[in-house]
Amino acid sequence: MSVSEKLNNKSLGLGSKKSAIREIFEYSKLRKEEIGAENVFDFSLGNPSVSPPKEVAEKIIELVSADNQAQLQGYTSAQGDISARNAIGTHLTSLSKGETQITGDNIYFTCGAAASLCISLKAILWENQKDEVIIVAPYFTEYTVFIESMGGRPVVVQSMKDTFKIDINAIANAITKNTKAVMINYPNNPSGVTITSRELAELSEMLILKSAEFGQIIYLISDEPYREINFTNEKSPLVFDYYKNSILCYSYSKSLSLAGARIGYIAISPKAKVSKDLYLAICGSGRSLGYVCAPSLFQRVVADLSGLTVDINIYKENAALIYKTLTSYGFELITPQGAFYILIKAEANTAQEFCNIAKQFEILLVPTDDFGVHGYVRLAYCKTRQEIINSFSAFKRLSEFLF
Amino acid sequence: MSVSEKLNNKSLGLGSKKSAIREIFEYSKLRKEEIGAENVFDFSLGNPSVSPPKEVAEKIIELVSADNQAQLQGYTSAQGDISARNAIGTHLTSLSKGETQITGDNIYFTCGAAASLCISLKAILWENQKDEVIIVAPYFTEYTVFIESMGGRPVVVQSMKDTFKIDINAIANAITKNTKAVMINYPNNPSGVTITSRELAELSEMLILKSAEFGQIIYLISDEPYREINFTNEKSPLVFDYYKNSILCYSYSKSLSLAGARIGYIAISPKAKVSKDLYLAICGSGRSLGYVCAPSLFQRVVADLSGLTVDINIYKENAALIYKTLTSYGFELITPQGAFYILIKAEANTAQEFCNIAKQFEILLVPTDDFGVHGYVRLAYCKTRQEIINSFSAFKRLSEFLF
Repeated sequence: MSVSEKLNNKSLGLGSKKSAIREIFEYSKLRKEEIGAENVFDFSLGNPSVSPPKEVAEKIIELVSADNQAQLQGYTSAQGDISARNAIGTHLTSLSKGETQITGDNIYFTCGAAASLCISLKAILWENQKDEVIIVAPYFTEYTVFIESMGGRPVVVQSMKDTFKIDINAIANAITKNTKAVMINYPNNPSGVTITSRELAELSEMLILKSAEFGQIIYLISDEPYREINFTNEKSPLVFDYYKNSILCYSYSKSLSLAGARIGYIAISPKAKVSKDLYLAICGSGRSLGYVCAPSLFQRVVADLSGLTVDINIYKENAALIYKTLTSYGFELITPQGAFYILIKAEANTAQEFCNIAKQFEILLVPTDDFGVHGYVRLAYCKTRQEIINSFSAFKRLSEFLF
Repeated sequence: MSVSEKLNNKSLGLGSKKSAIREIFEYSKLRKEEIGAENVFDFSLGNPSVSPPKEVAEKIIELVSADNQAQLQGYTSAQGDISARNAIGTHLTSLSKGETQITGDNIYFTCGAAASLCISLKAILWENQKDEVIIVAPYFTEYTVFIESMGGRPVVVQSMKDTFKIDINAIANAITKNTKAVMINYPNNPSGVTITSRELAELSEMLILKSAEFGQIIYLISDEPYREINFTNEKSPLVFDYYKNSILCYSYSKSLSLAGARIGYIAISPKAKVSKDLYLAICGSGRSLGYVCAPSLFQRVVADLSGLTVDINIYKENAALIYKTLTSYGFELITPQGAFYILIKAEANTAQEFCNIAKQFEILLVPTDDFGVHGYVRLAYCKTRQEIINSFSAFKRLSEFLF
């Protein structure tokens, strides 16, 4: 026998291979012990730095102090409690430009964004490793893992050079008869760039034409954990207003700083061609992946606090301060529009070299290579203001070394 | 195009087909509206009826009232917070007869028992649809779904006729060169029968011989959501004390009445032949199925309340009362040893016919056919004492009709 006595080699590989982010995380822990946490400027992780709004703890205390805890802490239906789902539907309807009515029947609660994506992908892929899913680089590193694991084949399309805006022509050129879906993620991890309603409308028009050309449904899967963390003048557009065959994957990890609570949802466009069957296929996928129901206490919490978010300005001000300061030191940065991230151009160095040099100045950043793009490093600014300010002298010295 | 415009047909099938239990659940809701909830005796569902111990709400309130909510509600590492995992390891070690030391490195927190099973199966199966997993009937209805979805082939072995004790010879006869694992579930859903340490030792001896005969690892996956709900004089034996290559899948759904919290774990035998690689393969499987980490708040809750359970006597007394009363009416029942369930023999009728007749008396039961066994019906006694007592006159009338 081989491959460690015949374990699943793909799983063993995924479990053994540390991601770049995870390696930096381990290094950071050790280094902080060596020289003191205040002397390590760790911008590697996208873990929310802002506490959940106080209403979250208040709501939890109210719920666990009520009668009938057996019901509160018991199973909900697999797709989630209907009254909680209705609350989400009402909230999404309020985000629409007025054309789309979303009900609880369009909502399927999940254990967060990763679950939302896996369940959605499994529902539409035929598990023959031929179905293609187009992803836009830079993309969240796990996209390729999820698509392959759910039986599909990721097809990577680059976004616009230097601006990281969506490149609709490039996506159009990548569509084939095997294309089952296009996945987008705005505001984007890791670029910090978002999509405008105009770009979404253009993407939709192109997908409608391509669907007709190939005589098949091409789904648009919009992964939106950062939907509210958008610093532009235009709110994040609702994908259902633009494209019929769309699936919105959401998580409260960032908007309510509830990453550990594992609560999110899939919303199906009510106008999708096979909306009801798509919903049933999502129910079946969740079932076959072992997702019995999403955490019941947190279904209640997010439904009752619908529309509430952490103070987004904290992230916006972090982004503006970093952009202004690092630009003044001579770094070239992508203008931040949302999410927790800002990209720094590696210039003459490779992304990995840039990170290695920054490490000498105790600054921890992530090379974008694992996100499908070369030549940039990701800075995650979900940190306290003071931590950011404290890092500037190190960045100054780094700039003096580099330029 | 067909199959609803080419959705995943397996997922669509799973999402569309209502289980027998789900159909009875829907009927129950309607019937209660028609004739009043107090007149419907619904014994179909295994949803815990006893509220979680008050310590659960107290612990939650303590945790969400503390400082640094960003950390409490943030991501933990994928396998779970190390201090919480260590607490589980210490607890499991205390259950050992003294030979097995379990540490946090053997524990992987999950979103409940279904997740534990799917992740474990994916770690050991090669996804070629040839690997066989032996399950023992009667078995939890979702076992076949999970095994097939994770790429394996379920092989059903019946337990002993009329007693539903484990049939070790029958399992031995079903083992082939393709057997990757044997899955057991004691105390058992739906039979209410459990396994003794002696039977577990015999099973282990047989598996050691068969592993040698076929020159391969045969894993023993022990699914134990009902481990503490055991009414016999012997506590549920710890599988690691008996068999090296074992995996324990656990959930707090029943022991702490936290079914909706989606919290459980996989424990890997520290003596397993490829223990470390098995653990890594489990990490990789969780990652590829979209399980980022188990709910962080509840990792903390169950770790801090390690060993606490609901009052098991409530279920024990329910079981004893039902057994005594229904036997006195002339029904033939399997002696309940644990879990939430008792089987009633359908006698001259098929299980479905028996359920249909019981329904005329407003008693809702589940035929065992979906559990892989014919001729019995399952009664779930996770109900209030008063609800049970109120049902007896209906059972009396049912017995007079039947006998």
